Amino acid sequence: MANILTVTLNPALDLSVETPTLNPGEVNRTGNTRLEPAGKGINVARVLARLGHSVTVTGLLGEANAAPFERLFEAEGLQDSLVRIPGQNRINIKIAEAGGRVTDLNGPGFRVSEDALQRLEFRLAQLLPECDAVVIGGSLPEGFPSSGLAGLVQLASGAGKPVWLDTSGEGLRTGIEAGPFAVKPNTDELSGWAGKPLKDITAVEAAVARVHAAGVSHVVVSMGADGVLWSSPAGTLRSWVPPVTVVSTVCAGDTLLAGMLHGVLLGQPDETILTFATALSAECVRHIGVGNPDAPDFSSLLQQTRVQPWPAENNTGEMPL
Amino acid sequence: MANILTVTLNPALDLSVETPTLNPGEVNRTGNTRLEPAGKGINVARVLARLGHSVTVTGLLGEANAAPFERLFEAEGLQDSLVRIPGQNRINIKIAEAGGRVTDLNGPGFRVSEDALQRLEFRLAQLLPECDAVVIGGSLPEGFPSSGLAGLVQLASGAGKPVWLDTSGEGLRTGIEAGPFAVKPNTDELSGWAGKPLKDITAVEAAVARVHAAGVSHVVVSMGADGVLWSSPAGTLRSWVPPVTVVSTVCAGDTLLAGMLHGVLLGQPDETILTFATALSAECVRHIGVGNPDAPDFSSLLQQTRVQPWPAENNTGEMPL
Repeated sequence: MANILTVTLNPALDLSVETPTLNPGEVNRTGNTRLEPAGKGINVARVLARLGHSVTVTGLLGEANAAPFERLFEAEGLQDSLVRIPGQNRINIKIAEAGGRVTDLNGPGFRVSEDALQRLEFRLAQLLPECDAVVIGGSLPEGFPSSGLAGLVQLASGAGKPVWLDTSGEGLRTGIEAGPFAVKPNTDELSGWAGKPLKDITAVEAAVARVHAAGVSHVVVSMGADGVLWSSPAGTLRSWVPPVTVVSTVCAGDTLLAGMLHGVLLGQPDETILTFATALSAECVRHIGVGNPDAPDFSSLLQQTRVQPWPAENNTGEMPL
Repeated sequence: MANILTVTLNPALDLSVETPTLNPGEVNRTGNTRLEPAGKGINVARVLARLGHSVTVTGLLGEANAAPFERLFEAEGLQDSLVRIPGQNRINIKIAEAGGRVTDLNGPGFRVSEDALQRLEFRLAQLLPECDAVVIGGSLPEGFPSSGLAGLVQLASGAGKPVWLDTSGEGLRTGIEAGPFAVKPNTDELSGWAGKPLKDITAVEAAVARVHAAGVSHVVVSMGADGVLWSSPAGTLRSWVPPVTVVSTVCAGDTLLAGMLHGVLLGQPDETILTFATALSAECVRHIGVGNPDAPDFSSLLQQTRVQPWPAENNTGEMPL
């Protein structure tokens, strides 16, 4: 198993509540309530730890509400090396009504000072020698320059470590320019990067070619129900997800990235890697939280996941049987 | 200064968020966000500690999200003697829109087992000898019998300690029957107890007489903008609140109770006690959180607070000049 370092720059506390109907201006009674630490790097770390890897989490963590994160790291066996900074981590509220409507209330988090970025770079430099791969994930907090993200990518790449980048917007733009080993946008994020809606898989493939041209070896595009496209120097593979009832897609991308990195670090065949990562991501969407490789029916999900080279001969776009 | 014990049976984490407009079914951006431990007994304890008393907090605390409470107790110098029980403390979300509309989402908390009530009684019995007064405040958690509340009132009263009770509904009903030293309902809570809306101060006075008849010496009714009525064996006083811009009334009643108890334990004259408590409560509603006796203009609020015996001769119901 590998030593993996994940970087989360803008951790969040996700508060999920359920209520029969949300009546604005009134007192609503809520049922099931969950307060869960989140952030792409942290989510990826949880999956990788469950897969048996030794994982260190770093990045920035607001001191004011750090405790739920610290408890999670302890419970999940993650090495906590996040740089503590003043202020609170953002709190995101998700209100799910019985009828299926979801209302999000996304809050602001801490503001990053120049000093914090320097402390993070110093911490990263200390941690890099011991790790086999680096995952940098999530949004950028207020005050964190996108050039700072590029600097982190270059720092890790310069130390000879493969960087897997999962972010969006301006961070994805400057991050790609810094030349990470891999990126994992979803279709929307890739559309944002391309500057236009990617309406079909042909448009996705064209955008992927541009990402490669910018210097990125591996491009993994998560396309929701349309599966995953993985383009690398070895060629392009596409997966089709097994049929599952979707409860929450919140951690699906993070689970997919963790599954991919797991297989790549173990040197597995590409088809095996993409099948496993896609199945684990499908396992994830069936419930709240990250994917669970120990789910009792996981082998069945694996068997139902299809992968084939892309574009396929006689391609119909339908899932191959 | 005194040793005071406060009992909170159903602590809550209050999450307050501000948003321009709450759009159900959409992603809303929130501004200022606060996650604050709450519960009447805990709020009262914070004010009393700021007034220089030595305060121990007991009651029940869910283990799953106890950390924010523990940090608060440490920061505010409160002695933590809450009985830890399995499960999480309820989370109450308050969404304030720029236009003034407020939406509440109130969650369920832990469920109390018989064993937890016994552990609490045992803890209370241990703590009673050292204290000068006991405050029992707040709602009852699921599974906590209202007879259990009456038992706590009797336990403390039986140990010769004055019990100040601040609760509502069924808890207030059985609590009053158990004969506390003082109760502090607001007009709505007293209406609930009386079984009918108390539409004017005459109706309030009639209900207060019934509370006395049930065996309670001191009845303090917080009437919002109409001030406070304090009825005791020494007579009845009414206060008028100074003009302030109301931001949040959430902790006003808890601050009032703390201010009253402070003066009573110090043996101050009744007019002084009610003036101070009313002014502190007015200080409280100007901001989020409990009242602050160290506010720079507190002496001005004190000077603007009027107290007179009630019913006044030539009573006009207006604030006396």
